[in-house]
Amino acid sequence: MGNRPGPVAERVLPALSWLRGYRRTDLPGDLTAGLTTGFMLVPQAMAYALLAGLPPSVGLYASTVPLVAYALFGSSRQLAVGPVAMVSLLVAAGISELATPGTPEYARYAALLALMVGLAQVALGLVRLGFLTNFISHAVITGFTAAAAIVILLSQVKHLLGVKIEPTESTLRLVAELWGQLPQTHWLALLVGAASIAVLVVLRARFPRFPAAMVVVLAATLLTWGLGLSRQGLPIVGEVPAGLPPFALPDLNPAAVSQLAVAALTILFVGYLESVSIAKMIAARERYRIYPDQELVALGMANVVAGLFSGYPVTGGFSRTAVNYQSGARTGLAALVTAALVALTLILLTPLFRHLPQAALAAVVVTAVVGLIDVRGMRQLFRLKPADGWVATVTFATTLGVGVEAGILTGVALSLLQFIWRSSHPHIAELGYVPAEGAYLNIRRFPEAIQHPDVLILRIDAALYFANMGFIETRLRQCLAERPETRWVVLDLSGVNDIDASAVHALEELMASHRERGITFVFAAMKGPVRDVIARAGWDSTTGYWQECHSVRDALEKIGLQPAAEN
Amino acid sequence: MGNRPGPVAERVLPALSWLRGYRRTDLPGDLTAGLTTGFMLVPQAMAYALLAGLPPSVGLYASTVPLVAYALFGSSRQLAVGPVAMVSLLVAAGISELATPGTPEYARYAALLALMVGLAQVALGLVRLGFLTNFISHAVITGFTAAAAIVILLSQVKHLLGVKIEPTESTLRLVAELWGQLPQTHWLALLVGAASIAVLVVLRARFPRFPAAMVVVLAATLLTWGLGLSRQGLPIVGEVPAGLPPFALPDLNPAAVSQLAVAALTILFVGYLESVSIAKMIAARERYRIYPDQELVALGMANVVAGLFSGYPVTGGFSRTAVNYQSGARTGLAALVTAALVALTLILLTPLFRHLPQAALAAVVVTAVVGLIDVRGMRQLFRLKPADGWVATVTFATTLGVGVEAGILTGVALSLLQFIWRSSHPHIAELGYVPAEGAYLNIRRFPEAIQHPDVLILRIDAALYFANMGFIETRLRQCLAERPETRWVVLDLSGVNDIDASAVHALEELMASHRERGITFVFAAMKGPVRDVIARAGWDSTTGYWQECHSVRDALEKIGLQPAAEN
Repeated sequence: MGNRPGPVAERVLPALSWLRGYRRTDLPGDLTAGLTTGFMLVPQAMAYALLAGLPPSVGLYASTVPLVAYALFGSSRQLAVGPVAMVSLLVAAGISELATPGTPEYARYAALLALMVGLAQVALGLVRLGFLTNFISHAVITGFTAAAAIVILLSQVKHLLGVKIEPTESTLRLVAELWGQLPQTHWLALLVGAASIAVLVVLRARFPRFPAAMVVVLAATLLTWGLGLSRQGLPIVGEVPAGLPPFALPDLNPAAVSQLAVAALTILFVGYLESVSIAKMIAARERYRIYPDQELVALGMANVVAGLFSGYPVTGGFSRTAVNYQSGARTGLAALVTAALVALTLILLTPLFRHLPQAALAAVVVTAVVGLIDVRGMRQLFRLKPADGWVATVTFATTLGVGVEAGILTGVALSLLQFIWRSSHPHIAELGYVPAEGAYLNIRRFPEAIQHPDVLILRIDAALYFANMGFIETRLRQCLAERPETRWVVLDLSGVNDIDASAVHALEELMASHRERGITFVFAAMKGPVRDVIARAGWDSTTGYWQECHSVRDALEKIGLQPAAEN
Repeated sequence: MGNRPGPVAERVLPALSWLRGYRRTDLPGDLTAGLTTGFMLVPQAMAYALLAGLPPSVGLYASTVPLVAYALFGSSRQLAVGPVAMVSLLVAAGISELATPGTPEYARYAALLALMVGLAQVALGLVRLGFLTNFISHAVITGFTAAAAIVILLSQVKHLLGVKIEPTESTLRLVAELWGQLPQTHWLALLVGAASIAVLVVLRARFPRFPAAMVVVLAATLLTWGLGLSRQGLPIVGEVPAGLPPFALPDLNPAAVSQLAVAALTILFVGYLESVSIAKMIAARERYRIYPDQELVALGMANVVAGLFSGYPVTGGFSRTAVNYQSGARTGLAALVTAALVALTLILLTPLFRHLPQAALAAVVVTAVVGLIDVRGMRQLFRLKPADGWVATVTFATTLGVGVEAGILTGVALSLLQFIWRSSHPHIAELGYVPAEGAYLNIRRFPEAIQHPDVLILRIDAALYFANMGFIETRLRQCLAERPETRWVVLDLSGVNDIDASAVHALEELMASHRERGITFVFAAMKGPVRDVIARAGWDSTTGYWQECHSVRDALEKIGLQPAAEN
């Protein structure tokens, strides 16, 4: 955080900057936004906790103190932190092998996981490694998100059908079990679920800022309670303990920590990525700056307190943040209002939620994540860059077929390999003079280009490094074999941004092996960083087998040729 | 091999091209070179076989049929194939865990290894994967070669001291054991070794083309025999069986194959790399072309027959090829002459080599590999690119400390990571108008450059892709924060050779989030491949929040500003 402006106190606690000079004019917006987001958060927190295999109360716990922590340390003023669907899915995937969902042991693992994620995020933020998320490409995110959304949707089908299913990691087995349970469908659950989805879809389309989820959840709860539907077998949430989140230090036993390590790392990056991308977008619109490493620290602090106060991993959510911003949030005060509303709910409303039907919560999850399946985005990737489309597809298939962590890792590895592959097969253009344009251009695009019989002009469009010099050499020798009278090779380096020792070495060998054949190399339009390396290599242009010029035109003049067109 | 010219027969068997039109004038050169290389090969083959933990005869076997195979299939006319030091070391490292050096079982593993390397090379060559070696950078080769040379030198010390040492993989333990055995030094062995080294060094310096190794080996053998030195305890080679290499199909049992797989892959790449680099250099001087994939097939055929005729893995050797070329080799006939000479040696001279002192063979190895420790090259790497120097150092240390395979793998991984790291932190220059140069240049290098207060001009010197967009965004926002009056952002893309979907997406978000602030993006000097992707993304410059121009100057004119200097 070294290169950030401002006093130290505000760099550590960015909240000071809005707390100190709080403007009364920001209050109405902050209040409205905080309440609106709170009404959205209460049902979502319970629903996502169930998705993570936790009791609804844990979701509410994770929606109190962590929000305060983020409001103090975060550099975004509108980010709405709390439980989100994707992270909840990762929590379920990470813990379900170690404990049975719904048990106190499972909840202890969840709190430990939050603490681990938090400490790791704080550490990464302090050593400024926030940029690591840059290595997750857009293609990987598109493919991964779509697959995760499908996994989340499938996990909710059992609630919508009102059937019981053994937890399983395999998507295929889950689908098969659901199919087998279809005859056991509880029609009342299906009715409640379908009706909730319908109401949510209609309300969201018509009144985007209306707290639809809260209304649906409250209506379903009151109906279930009033009509005694749970006696008809409709699965309900059951006892939600009243009271503020209890403090409990997670049990840091080394075996559990090492078993949760992979899950913690995945949650760390996925959570951070979701959070920082929405925070950045809003900050840009509001003309303030987001500090990625400070964001990592702030999310880390939120997760640490989530772990200490019986919660589970949290992050900045995409949809709630958008609602918070659109409802007028100006500062972190909005988040404090949201946290207060959730705390009030925990104290007063939990007896009510006992009768909340699980199908209604499933409807909240389903309508929230269905938009994450971005078929159009996938198709656009194929149109833009087919290679990116394939990375997204492989990431999608691996996430769905093998698992969420394998999906992300495969995607990242594949996109890096793809980049290396592309840069090891750079675009090389043979140039000729095009009189109409007055410039030296690619003879493939301009067949009318004029070439000197004894001069070969090549433009290499890539940094020169070990992995592409073989390709470039082969191409050069090919061109020379096709044009045996060549006496001058002019390399236009205007597109060469960098050069490494292997490339310097390869060029030296190329020049040495062609010197005896009477071929001289001329390097045109060499950039500063490349020239610096060449100078350190001790090349000496006075030896006569290579020269350097500002441009291709200069090179031809130096050779003693008029540019072709002026012949 | 699709894009190679010429009739099919000559593409499969490149030897046809020189066999059909053999010129009598090439004969004297081919004969002299073939004999000279043969005289060098006989002692080296025996010495390298001992280095690999094999009887000397196996080295001679590997110097007969494989040479014929390469002469038929190879595209180089001067390459001298046979046992080489580096590959012999890899053979020792790969097999010594499975069998005891010197036993028939060990020799069978060596033949199997040759067959595996050969089949894999042929397969890779046929599917044209020869370019994979491009991923081994010059820095990795420098570090690896130096460490391997030290390991080879250390392995010969026991012969020079005339002591016995248990085989060990650990360099440190080897040094410790040698130290412990120092008092047992056999002074006669040390004398023979030191004298041989001295004679070799002097002869090589004075008469580079003289077959010094053969003379030293023959002189040492005759002396040992005449003076009966072996009765004084001087370790000698012992019985070398007479006769041509026996045919034997290696036992392809799956357990052995899987245990040798890593060693085979390493030998495949290291052997191919050594061979193809010297072949390329000579081909360039002689103005003919090397086909890397055909080379892989040819070396593969040489290794297959090495495996079938009781040999061990071979490749094109650096020093022997240089001697072959300098002695006048014009065609593959030289290699056939060499093979015939070795065959003759196997039939007639083996009784003589019984008295060959091991110390003399060690002297041959030591003088051959000591030049591979390239301290100057290492220092030059640090001067050229410190990052490359570190890659070489880590590769060196890992090869020496852990092992040869670990060394290469670490080096390759590190150089790829380093490339990704560099490309994810691209050079970005803020430009201003420099009247003296009449151009828009980096304001850091030209502090006198003139800037418009409401125009920010940035030149990005890298392909835009997922791993560097975060960095670029941060830099752009930083610049905008420093210059709040900015209304136009001109991005000079003349150094951007490629763009991926993540970058397109990130640019779209950047433009969207700045549009509301009244900031318009102008893209100048966009290259063809980048423009193609942008066009497919459906960007539409008529919306008014971005524009495209040929150059920075055009951009400023389009904005409605005169270039700064003309104000």
